[in-house]
Amino acid sequence: MNLRIPGPTPLPPDVLQALSRQMINHRGPEFASLIAEVTNQLKYFFQTENDLLILTGSGTGAMEASIVNTLSPGERVLAVSIGNFGDRFAEIATQFGLDVVKIGFPMGQAADPDEIARKLDADRDITTVLVTHNETSTGVTNDLEAISAVVKGRDKLLIVDGISSVGSVEVKTDAWGCDVVLSGSQKGWMAPPGLAFASLSKLAWERHANAKLPRMYWDFTAAKKYLEHGETPFTPAISVFYALQVSLQSLREEGRDEVFARHARIAKHARDRVSSLGLRLFADPKHASNTVTAFYTPEGVDSRVIAKELEEKYDTVVAVGQGAITATTMRFGHLGWVSEADIDVAADAVGKTIERLATIPAR
Amino acid sequence: MNLRIPGPTPLPPDVLQALSRQMINHRGPEFASLIAEVTNQLKYFFQTENDLLILTGSGTGAMEASIVNTLSPGERVLAVSIGNFGDRFAEIATQFGLDVVKIGFPMGQAADPDEIARKLDADRDITTVLVTHNETSTGVTNDLEAISAVVKGRDKLLIVDGISSVGSVEVKTDAWGCDVVLSGSQKGWMAPPGLAFASLSKLAWERHANAKLPRMYWDFTAAKKYLEHGETPFTPAISVFYALQVSLQSLREEGRDEVFARHARIAKHARDRVSSLGLRLFADPKHASNTVTAFYTPEGVDSRVIAKELEEKYDTVVAVGQGAITATTMRFGHLGWVSEADIDVAADAVGKTIERLATIPAR
Repeated sequence: MNLRIPGPTPLPPDVLQALSRQMINHRGPEFASLIAEVTNQLKYFFQTENDLLILTGSGTGAMEASIVNTLSPGERVLAVSIGNFGDRFAEIATQFGLDVVKIGFPMGQAADPDEIARKLDADRDITTVLVTHNETSTGVTNDLEAISAVVKGRDKLLIVDGISSVGSVEVKTDAWGCDVVLSGSQKGWMAPPGLAFASLSKLAWERHANAKLPRMYWDFTAAKKYLEHGETPFTPAISVFYALQVSLQSLREEGRDEVFARHARIAKHARDRVSSLGLRLFADPKHASNTVTAFYTPEGVDSRVIAKELEEKYDTVVAVGQGAITATTMRFGHLGWVSEADIDVAADAVGKTIERLATIPAR
Repeated sequence: MNLRIPGPTPLPPDVLQALSRQMINHRGPEFASLIAEVTNQLKYFFQTENDLLILTGSGTGAMEASIVNTLSPGERVLAVSIGNFGDRFAEIATQFGLDVVKIGFPMGQAADPDEIARKLDADRDITTVLVTHNETSTGVTNDLEAISAVVKGRDKLLIVDGISSVGSVEVKTDAWGCDVVLSGSQKGWMAPPGLAFASLSKLAWERHANAKLPRMYWDFTAAKKYLEHGETPFTPAISVFYALQVSLQSLREEGRDEVFARHARIAKHARDRVSSLGLRLFADPKHASNTVTAFYTPEGVDSRVIAKELEEKYDTVVAVGQGAITATTMRFGHLGWVSEADIDVAADAVGKTIERLATIPAR
């Protein structure tokens, strides 16, 4: 199967092999050395000296964790949304009783840092900004460095959903002053889903100390305390740790800059191939994502019809759109273990499929 | 390694093999068929026709989920505790702002259903009872059928932590009227940690409809809605599903009653072997657990000293005690993929170790 969705991603053979290691005691010395190694490798890709915590759950779990650990009921937060995952962040904040001010941008566009600045200047009660770095639903990457400059220039807490960017796209957590940065194991990390990551700055810990939202499973204090002894508070997804240990060694060997450059190169290849099929790219070209490419289906052809045929005839799995653009867009994931050849196989299959569908007379 | 802790447990070869299957689309037909099969198999072992939801997280995550999905702030709950995991359930309820009435029993003893009845009769504001079926910290199994009769006879919601019992010990979820029953993949299920399970009765869903505690990641309505389409709301721990598919097929082939009988037989063997070493069992013999056996260390010998030597000299990993009995007790896990021979290896190693430690003159 050519799995070309924006996570879960295909796993390299040595990662698959690692998954079949026998279980160990999660409170013993082998696990302590494993979590220490994986944590350090993640910090290298997060470009941070801050604490980094590994949670058992999906990326959305980490989003919930970042909110319940740093905020108090009724606190005013600015949720910046450029698509479905931005909306999700706002929804979590709303569910937990925060006073959510939402600033949205049209799907396919990036957030405008100046507009965020104006919002923050006009509404001084906002303490915290939630932002998606890479919006998986539209294939748009926000200019996190510029957004961070705006947010940190106003001394707000900055929480970044970097779930589908960190490890594949440059995120300078410390240099840019991002307080909380999140990611998930099934994205560019070449590991299965089941673990999520959160880095925390000094300011994030200060906010945490006074944050009153209820929490237990996601509590960062417990995670930090146990990590100091090479453990997690609750039983972790050990086999995903095995996978990450091996995949992070590969990524490290390849080198951070080389991994980012490869993602940029393959993303450009994906956009070129899609365009050459006569299909229109969805994202603003200035902010096109290096991990996922969204494109319009041909006029009047439902994305789900194309996706079904791709799977049945070509063993190629792509993602359809999300939310309002479910039927009219499709997406290629190109993060993690991916090469130009994988894109070619998927693009060829899309080309043949739309050609065939175009010749079917409308009923 | 002879891994003899009460979870994670050793995995059979075919389960290890299944873990190295390539990733699939969690929103595609293969996953839909996988989650349907695993859910049905789990329901057979839970002995329930109720809904059963699979969550990505540890057992403690499922405990938190059961609380935030069925209760509202300030609601009065009775937390029945016979050890560390009972205390944890009470702690989660407290963290989430519930009005927690705790009823504790001495470690090593089971809960007295009559005392629970008296408490419920004296305090009519209690709406919900939290109870541990099998207390992993002490190796005691509560009489869930009797407790359930008391609780359901008074029309309270009954939430059961069956994390280390369901699948290894009989739990008649429907026949006994248990409203919410929880378990976790790394226990008797012969799978790695990463997934947790919750069954929900009609009353549980009714309570859920009015439950005001904040939730998003753990929301049962979302989980049920997505399950109807063969999905989960957020990316699930796919490789753990692969493992469960295979391990549940094995358990199903063995047969429910046979699996429970095997656990009973091996547990008795473990107690006999420990006793024959001259070590005193911790649990009340009338309520000794079939999945974990706790026993006292020899007078003056710290459990951690024994555990260290077991690991270093005999490649045998046992659990030390928890909480107040950390130093003075140890525990054998005997759930999942376990035989009498595994117990013999561990018991022999303990025997040789305590013999050697006894001959070391005290410093």
